[in-house]
Amino acid sequence: MSARTSKLLLKRLSKYLDKSRLLTSDEALAPYECDGLSAYRQRPALVALPDTTGQIQAILRICYEMDVPVVTRGAGTSLSGGALPHKDGVVLGLAGLNKILDIDIQNRTARVQPGVRNLAITEAAAPYGLYYAPDPSSQIACSIGGNVAENAGGIHCLKYGLTVHNILNIKILTIEGEVLSIGTQALDSPGFELLALLTGSEGMLGVITEITVKLLPKPDVARVLMASFDDVEKAGNAVTGIIGSGIIPGALEMMDNLAIRAVEDFMHIGYPADADAILLCELDGMESEVNDQIEAVQQVLNESGASEVRLARDEQERTMFWAGRKSAFPAAGRLAPDYYCMDGTIPRKHLGQVLKRIGRLSEEYGLPVANVFHAGDGNLHPLILYDANQEGQLHLAEQLGARILELSVEVGGTITGEHGVGIEKIDQMCVQFQTAELAQFHAVKDAFDSKRLLNPGKAVPELHRCAELGAMHVHHGQLPHPEIERF
Amino acid sequence: MSARTSKLLLKRLSKYLDKSRLLTSDEALAPYECDGLSAYRQRPALVALPDTTGQIQAILRICYEMDVPVVTRGAGTSLSGGALPHKDGVVLGLAGLNKILDIDIQNRTARVQPGVRNLAITEAAAPYGLYYAPDPSSQIACSIGGNVAENAGGIHCLKYGLTVHNILNIKILTIEGEVLSIGTQALDSPGFELLALLTGSEGMLGVITEITVKLLPKPDVARVLMASFDDVEKAGNAVTGIIGSGIIPGALEMMDNLAIRAVEDFMHIGYPADADAILLCELDGMESEVNDQIEAVQQVLNESGASEVRLARDEQERTMFWAGRKSAFPAAGRLAPDYYCMDGTIPRKHLGQVLKRIGRLSEEYGLPVANVFHAGDGNLHPLILYDANQEGQLHLAEQLGARILELSVEVGGTITGEHGVGIEKIDQMCVQFQTAELAQFHAVKDAFDSKRLLNPGKAVPELHRCAELGAMHVHHGQLPHPEIERF
Repeated sequence: MSARTSKLLLKRLSKYLDKSRLLTSDEALAPYECDGLSAYRQRPALVALPDTTGQIQAILRICYEMDVPVVTRGAGTSLSGGALPHKDGVVLGLAGLNKILDIDIQNRTARVQPGVRNLAITEAAAPYGLYYAPDPSSQIACSIGGNVAENAGGIHCLKYGLTVHNILNIKILTIEGEVLSIGTQALDSPGFELLALLTGSEGMLGVITEITVKLLPKPDVARVLMASFDDVEKAGNAVTGIIGSGIIPGALEMMDNLAIRAVEDFMHIGYPADADAILLCELDGMESEVNDQIEAVQQVLNESGASEVRLARDEQERTMFWAGRKSAFPAAGRLAPDYYCMDGTIPRKHLGQVLKRIGRLSEEYGLPVANVFHAGDGNLHPLILYDANQEGQLHLAEQLGARILELSVEVGGTITGEHGVGIEKIDQMCVQFQTAELAQFHAVKDAFDSKRLLNPGKAVPELHRCAELGAMHVHHGQLPHPEIERF
Repeated sequence: MSARTSKLLLKRLSKYLDKSRLLTSDEALAPYECDGLSAYRQRPALVALPDTTGQIQAILRICYEMDVPVVTRGAGTSLSGGALPHKDGVVLGLAGLNKILDIDIQNRTARVQPGVRNLAITEAAAPYGLYYAPDPSSQIACSIGGNVAENAGGIHCLKYGLTVHNILNIKILTIEGEVLSIGTQALDSPGFELLALLTGSEGMLGVITEITVKLLPKPDVARVLMASFDDVEKAGNAVTGIIGSGIIPGALEMMDNLAIRAVEDFMHIGYPADADAILLCELDGMESEVNDQIEAVQQVLNESGASEVRLARDEQERTMFWAGRKSAFPAAGRLAPDYYCMDGTIPRKHLGQVLKRIGRLSEEYGLPVANVFHAGDGNLHPLILYDANQEGQLHLAEQLGARILELSVEVGGTITGEHGVGIEKIDQMCVQFQTAELAQFHAVKDAFDSKRLLNPGKAVPELHRCAELGAMHVHHGQLPHPEIERF
């Protein structure tokens, strides 16, 4: 951004925001130069920190008039670089809009500002026996606006759905500063379904200024089973078996041997360090229902060849079992200087096979991979361990990650389960989609933001970029974009 | 359409479809001039009945080049005039694409063509203990393509969701004949969420050529409670109480006195003819869970002041209880020469109050209204009884219907729950939405169909139409579009 534009922008914004809420110095900008995907860094031209919706509207109108890109940021916990700044743009930080506006106990909803932390909603609802279901690992820190922008998941999404299934209404501002009120309190909404379209749109269609979320009553009982397996394929089959029996567990998580050992070294939970894989299966609901389900799940686990099945004997042990799972990322972080967390999803029936192929890819690239993931959803989180200080290792890790995502697509899955595409997986979008679908994404983008100022360069690749990559991909021995009739 | 255009169109289409599949004579066109909303009728220029996707593509390309409107039609069961033809357009009838392409038992999905009947999917899945959950009343006849286009519901949608929650993938053709493959087998999908956007888009964004639906395992047990009330408000409170207790019944339906009496006269089910309202509450799942839920629901019903609570003693009585509910529309049809079925939704907590206000509106307009509806969803289906042969009664019925829909919006609900907007509720869209949202709908429409050839005049009103209606609406004593700051 030219010094002249920068000066004019600051001058115009100063009419609406106090100077302390407009950051331009290098020191002040530094904390905003990356999000949770710290391998990518970019300093923006300016950070604006509004604390009213009127200020957001003013910022957007000015940026629109001046053709300045806008990257919206919540708590900055994105794992796909969704909040990576644009060098000539404004970072619109919404952490200051952190009020819970209303809790409606009878309708079981909460109306909140976008900067409210995920866990803060559950804390505010707890006195009424209610909670907000989606629970990403970062729920202590991440904000609900970012959850909506990324359609965030979590371990309980298998039973209770993603963010999109747990919100009713949003208010957004378009890049032109227009207010749109989207969604209803009802099951369906007339007109085109913009609520789902906006959810997961990674800040590219509008800026979310208010969200009405659903609250759920806390289940009477929650109990957890831990099963050990001497083979990941058996564990994968057990997952298919449990879901196939008609039970939807509250959570169904898998960890492989490397992840188990990392957690044991770190936390001393009592996980079986020699197991090839463990499953953690939580069952929640009314007591009699949970008891029946425990029995049914135990039977499936035994039939699938589990070498040991343990029911957490009390609430304390249940909490311990989960504490291990929740600390798996930092635990894996102790095994190597750096790790790279992937986020592909696959049809559940391919779990065992895909884990074995990831093992072979890990050997091929010479980088260890720990697997810890939402097995019930088929949502993999392979953690690629590497050392960024060793020449070429980051590049190798990225290549291995790309191969894993392409493998997910190959078996009928996707390149992202809950972390979004962001900047990280933009090239894999060329593998996931064909030209016609990508062109349609751009057309939808233009229907909201024809100047393409909102979060440019994220989530949807330019077509020429895919064309260039397509040529490269032939070297992998397969053509990802076969130009054959597709019926 | 001019005779010359018509001749050219027929000539071009004849290259791809046999003459027997291109209807132009008055007699052949007659059956297509209306759908389930027979108050609206329009003869199209031509009906095309393809039986391959390639033929659909050819038809769309020709219509696109010649600027001919296209109205897609499945089984023609729309209750909102969604398949009402355009006088200068082609009706694209997809009933011929009726193959079930694949049933994947392990992944519990079925891949089907758009003309497959809703119930045919469940019939095909039954040998594997599976079924397709959404069950609109017309499920014997209606086709899955139309279900997706209207985001159809049904009595089991309270627990199992609408169509959008029960599909994974669709293939569509754009008006330009481009194939788009939308959705994934995974929980979330990268890129913008076009699956939800297309679902319920009422044939205005694309033509659905293939659908992959989710199949569910049949519940072990299903039992139904019937509760009688001497006051609709008490019944409304019981609904709030049941949902508030944390139970999600398989179905939770309400009928008011007029509907009860109509059904009893017709079917002799054994419904309490003197009750002000009855609730039918189905509980399904594992046996122990269902038993616990029956106990909990019975308690809520008693506390809400039910005058009688009956548990269907066996499967035969359960079927009878539901047969009465399912025949409520034809039964009400015996009370008057004509009826007009509305489809508003409201927040559940307002059920009792809104039913009383509908009663007062019914008196004001001098037309009886029978209420039979999905109480658990807050999805009302008031049936306005009238006689079209009596001068002015149709007009009165339409006015009363509009008032009921506006009442739904006033209490925070919507003008449609599951029947779509179509041609029927297009004016009420001006009450539901403000100009900015309607403009955004048009922008999204243009991103798919810039010539606005697909189902023109449906679902989203032109802005000038709303402006004209807005002026009229002031006479109701309230301004539906207050131009105040909306934060």
